[in-house]
Amino acid sequence: MQVTAERIAQHFNGEIIGDPYVKISSVSKIENGKPGNICFLANPKYEHYIYTSKASAIIINKTFVPKEKIAPTLIVVDNAYSAVASLLDLLNSLKKEKRSGRSWRAHVSWSSKIGKGAYIGAFAYVGKKSIIGKGSQIYPQVYIGNNVTVGENVILYQGVKIYDGCKVGDNCILHANCVIGADGFGFAPQPDGTYKKIPQTGIVVLDDNVEVGANTTIDRATMGQTHIGKGTKIDNLVQVAHNVEIGHDNVFAAMTGIAGSTKIGNNCQFGGQSGTVGHIEVGDRVRVGAQTGIIGNTKADSLLMGTPAINYKNYLKSYAHFVHLKEYKEKIDELEAFIKKEESEEK
Amino acid sequence: MQVTAERIAQHFNGEIIGDPYVKISSVSKIENGKPGNICFLANPKYEHYIYTSKASAIIINKTFVPKEKIAPTLIVVDNAYSAVASLLDLLNSLKKEKRSGRSWRAHVSWSSKIGKGAYIGAFAYVGKKSIIGKGSQIYPQVYIGNNVTVGENVILYQGVKIYDGCKVGDNCILHANCVIGADGFGFAPQPDGTYKKIPQTGIVVLDDNVEVGANTTIDRATMGQTHIGKGTKIDNLVQVAHNVEIGHDNVFAAMTGIAGSTKIGNNCQFGGQSGTVGHIEVGDRVRVGAQTGIIGNTKADSLLMGTPAINYKNYLKSYAHFVHLKEYKEKIDELEAFIKKEESEEK
Amino acid sequence: MQVTAERIAQHFNGEIIGDPYVKISSVSKIENGKPGNICFLANPKYEHYIYTSKASAIIINKTFVPKEKIAPTLIVVDNAYSAVASLLDLLNSLKKEKRSGRSWRAHVSWSSKIGKGAYIGAFAYVGKKSIIGKGSQIYPQVYIGNNVTVGENVILYQGVKIYDGCKVGDNCILHANCVIGADGFGFAPQPDGTYKKIPQTGIVVLDDNVEVGANTTIDRATMGQTHIGKGTKIDNLVQVAHNVEIGHDNVFAAMTGIAGSTKIGNNCQFGGQSGTVGHIEVGDRVRVGAQTGIIGNTKADSLLMGTPAINYKNYLKSYAHFVHLKEYKEKIDELEAFIKKEESEEK
Repeated sequence: MQVTAERIAQHFNGEIIGDPYVKISSVSKIENGKPGNICFLANPKYEHYIYTSKASAIIINKTFVPKEKIAPTLIVVDNAYSAVASLLDLLNSLKKEKRSGRSWRAHVSWSSKIGKGAYIGAFAYVGKKSIIGKGSQIYPQVYIGNNVTVGENVILYQGVKIYDGCKVGDNCILHANCVIGADGFGFAPQPDGTYKKIPQTGIVVLDDNVEVGANTTIDRATMGQTHIGKGTKIDNLVQVAHNVEIGHDNVFAAMTGIAGSTKIGNNCQFGGQSGTVGHIEVGDRVRVGAQTGIIGNTKADSLLMGTPAINYKNYLKSYAHFVHLKEYKEKIDELEAFIKKEESEEK
Repeated sequence: MQVTAERIAQHFNGEIIGDPYVKISSVSKIENGKPGNICFLANPKYEHYIYTSKASAIIINKTFVPKEKIAPTLIVVDNAYSAVASLLDLLNSLKKEKRSGRSWRAHVSWSSKIGKGAYIGAFAYVGKKSIIGKGSQIYPQVYIGNNVTVGENVILYQGVKIYDGCKVGDNCILHANCVIGADGFGFAPQPDGTYKKIPQTGIVVLDDNVEVGANTTIDRATMGQTHIGKGTKIDNLVQVAHNVEIGHDNVFAAMTGIAGSTKIGNNCQFGGQSGTVGHIEVGDRVRVGAQTGIIGNTKADSLLMGTPAINYKNYLKSYAHFVHLKEYKEKIDELEAFIKKEESEEK
Repeated sequence: MQVTAERIAQHFNGEIIGDPYVKISSVSKIENGKPGNICFLANPKYEHYIYTSKASAIIINKTFVPKEKIAPTLIVVDNAYSAVASLLDLLNSLKKEKRSGRSWRAHVSWSSKIGKGAYIGAFAYVGKKSIIGKGSQIYPQVYIGNNVTVGENVILYQGVKIYDGCKVGDNCILHANCVIGADGFGFAPQPDGTYKKIPQTGIVVLDDNVEVGANTTIDRATMGQTHIGKGTKIDNLVQVAHNVEIGHDNVFAAMTGIAGSTKIGNNCQFGGQSGTVGHIEVGDRVRVGAQTGIIGNTKADSLLMGTPAINYKNYLKSYAHFVHLKEYKEKIDELEAFIKKEESEEK
């Protein structure tokens, strides 16, 4: 995929200085620019790179005044920094051809309904009475069980597995090998020490605009549903246990674990490798540090760190003292020795 | 799948009050009951829901005396609470049609033996000289290598991958995309700083009634076997390294990691995101808190928390003081200042 | 696969005592030796096993002088301990037939190039304009997107998923269900509290001799590349986020998480369940304890433990005092009470 500098300038309503027909195929940082790349100069501290750059084009701020001659084509915009995301969007949309149609190597039950413009890749499996919305992209090797609903413009990347009955909203993106709807981890201990499986008869519901990372697992509810609210973004290798209810617009970094039946509000941010125990409630806008372990109900707007989780500033403060515990102990011993000595002298 | 209230009442040997022919398709909590649902009232604090419930049927205790009129069909049993698991079992068994036969889209080596009534789904792969027991359900996109043994009535969900030579006992359930028998992580450091792979020639053995969660990994032994004892239940995204030996009836919550060559007894419980180092022994009935890290041999019946793991009560006690370390430090400084002052006054 | 004791003796240039034609099919520890096994006796404390062993052959040191009669065939070598890895190599190479050719059940785009002697298994998918090097083994159910480059003598085990544009060097081994090149976790917060996806247009590059564990995830860069240096070994269930740059010959144990844009030097070792925050630099030869969390730039040769990570000896020292915090607090209270009493007496 190649696009001219001119096409990009049009996109930003920007002015061109230099060759408008130079061909761009990807974005790079200004320090790595090669022919075919477009870069951007937003931070003045990188200015020196622009004079020797081999990139084909560079996006600059209106306010930028060059001190030397610049070889690459320049695209002048109001705000080079904020142009980056938009540029990535443009290139991405040009790059990803949207596919449609059904591979003859896919298995699709006659009782399922596939929306207009949807794509079903090779070795994908669609069970009975499932529904795939318009324009959705079901990549090769995806598994969709029976009675599953997949919304419109969804992307299920290669190897995604969705168990029977689960529901995926519109515009969701599920990355490779994530698993939606495996049995919750529920077992009743028996008098003889063995465990009896408690059937997990519920489902998983993902609302619209949810993104789920590679190899992440979201378990079905025992009854009812495990629920992920609109616009919540989940990274790779995250575990969401059965019966969990998560609100809208949360962000869960990689390797977070949410234990069973816990409820999480809206607009929270969980750092990597953090977790919560089961059966608790976490309020809105809670921010959780990496590797933190929450073991109780948590008020809205809390900032947490540590296991068990406490206020993150308090955690860091206490930890700064933890590092000196040996000295403190020695000081205590010294004081004690001094007092004992005094006492004995007094006698 | 639908079933009448009468059919459910028969199952429990319960009495019916109301319409016995109302159709039930799933279970829900009493606070969420909708037409087609069956609910249960076990805890008196939820009693008020029963009078306005839209559910089609409700299971109640013999001892329950209604204060108002109740619309749904009632099924009266000895113990509504303990009826729930049994009810889920019933609905589950009615829901999951057991499949049999081999998809023409599967690859099955002629040298492998497939038991009577077994199911091999589309895009599944069964290598050479493998054995699949009677009635086992091999879902689509499963991979079974060469010389693998899968017992009777096993379920391998979509995307499960089993490497050459591994053995899976009867009645095991393996969830989507778990990986059994990948190479253990063994490398010999070389004088030049590189690592040389140590071949992993052993296997993985899962005894009967083991359950393995989605995206969990259990590595093959360097020699001999990585072994999971009878009835042990393993949640999602768990790592069991090479040469590990785990006893019977243990429970490992999600994201637990057991490092190489460690031995774990029977009837232990590991909380989420906990772990052990390699080459240690953990006794029977040990209970491990979430995010705990065990770094040494551990006696039977220990209750652990923290990294490194200590008795969980001691951990929580020490942590309660950790939170106040700043104040303690200030107090120490105060005492020291006081004593120094006294000392100088005495001189 | 079976091999005679004589064949093994030749491999080590060792001397044979006993039947040279006995057939060996696998290695076991000396305490578990069964017919068909070869064992080794390196540590004198296991000597007693040799006199009753049922193994077919045993490798012994030249210096070993038996005290009783030994039934198995003996292979006498200079160093029995160091022979083990070599023996595993030999058996492994005899065991793993290298496959070649393309399954008629695979999908391979006509625009991709498959090297001589490469193997493409059933239900594998190779997209457009991708290149697979000579002798590489693409197992069943692997997904290779468009414009992917896979080097020579690579093994991609069943279920590996490689997104568009990524590059895998020569001699790499990728274990089942690992995911290379899923979108980095990048979202721009919007004024209304929602998140807008930032397109991830970069790739992942694995240099030669990299090994990647089962269910591990390595995300594509936002721009440019996420890069794993030559000979680095990554265990199961590890997360490497977008834009990360990792040097050569590092070792990452299972469940480690490296957050976005972090740079890691060479010859580092990360323990299980450890992690780093994003946007930091970690020097060469850093060793990181299990469950450790690194939150800042880290000098070469550091040894770390704790969250936040500090020197591991200091961590363990402080932790040894942490365990006694209750007593320290009581001692402080005692000292304070004593001083207060003295003060009041003085008045």
